[in-house]
Amino acid sequence: MAASREDILNTIEGYIKSVAGGTVDDVLALYADGATVEDPVGTEPRTTVEALREFYGIIEPLEQTGVLGMVKIAGSEAAFNFVLTTTMGENSVEISVIDVMTFDEDAKITSMKAYWSQEDMVAR
Amino acid sequence: MAASREDILNTIEGYIKSVAGGTVDDVLALYADGATVEDPVGTEPRTTVEALREFYGIIEPLEQTGVLGMVKIAGSEAAFNFVLTTTMGENSVEISVIDVMTFDEDAKITSMKAYWSQEDMVAR
Repeated sequence: MAASREDILNTIEGYIKSVAGGTVDDVLALYADGATVEDPVGTEPRTTVEALREFYGIIEPLEQTGVLGMVKIAGSEAAFNFVLTTTMGENSVEISVIDVMTFDEDAKITSMKAYWSQEDMVAR
Repeated sequence: MAASREDILNTIEGYIKSVAGGTVDDVLALYADGATVEDPVGTEPRTTVEALREFYGIIEPLEQTGVLGMVKIAGSEAAFNFVLTTTMGENSVEISVIDVMTFDEDAKITSMKAYWSQEDMVAR
């Protein structure tokens, strides 16, 4: 049975929270075995747990806040916007992204593609 | 060579304009040969020109306005939000969608997936 709308939304909310303020393990717990990550779209997809761990490991120590914007859920997929703000001392960088995810029956993420480019980053 | 960011944006703007107020031919002119349309995501993809013509033919006669929201372009793909308002006499229905498209070298659309569900429609 496909994951419910509510379960998918829970995973998305947990993802933003974990990416911004959680550990790599918090993030990876939301992914299904064999999941792939293409971030940003157009780069080589990461296809192993090690590659995902390395990717999320880079942002784990950063001081970040994440705000979820619009969420569109269709079938067992979703597209949603979020703004991630990284603070470094007195400076911060804000990036606004649209993520597209597919989910398995347990609402675990089976693939993630992140749509953004340099133009979507703003220094403050 | 991949389509430029500017060309992709032009296609997206033309798409919203054509879907809202253009003809089926206006819309189809933006698609590459062999393009696929999955709208909404989770339904059977339309894979022939005839199926695309039938799909866009349904909305051609409607009185609609389209407003493009955020656009995220990454490589030769894009995710963007738009709001389509359909007016029927004194009533109107507003739908907010995230579309994901891939583009060929000429910035023609090679695939479109529309993320929305009943929850994204509002009657006014």
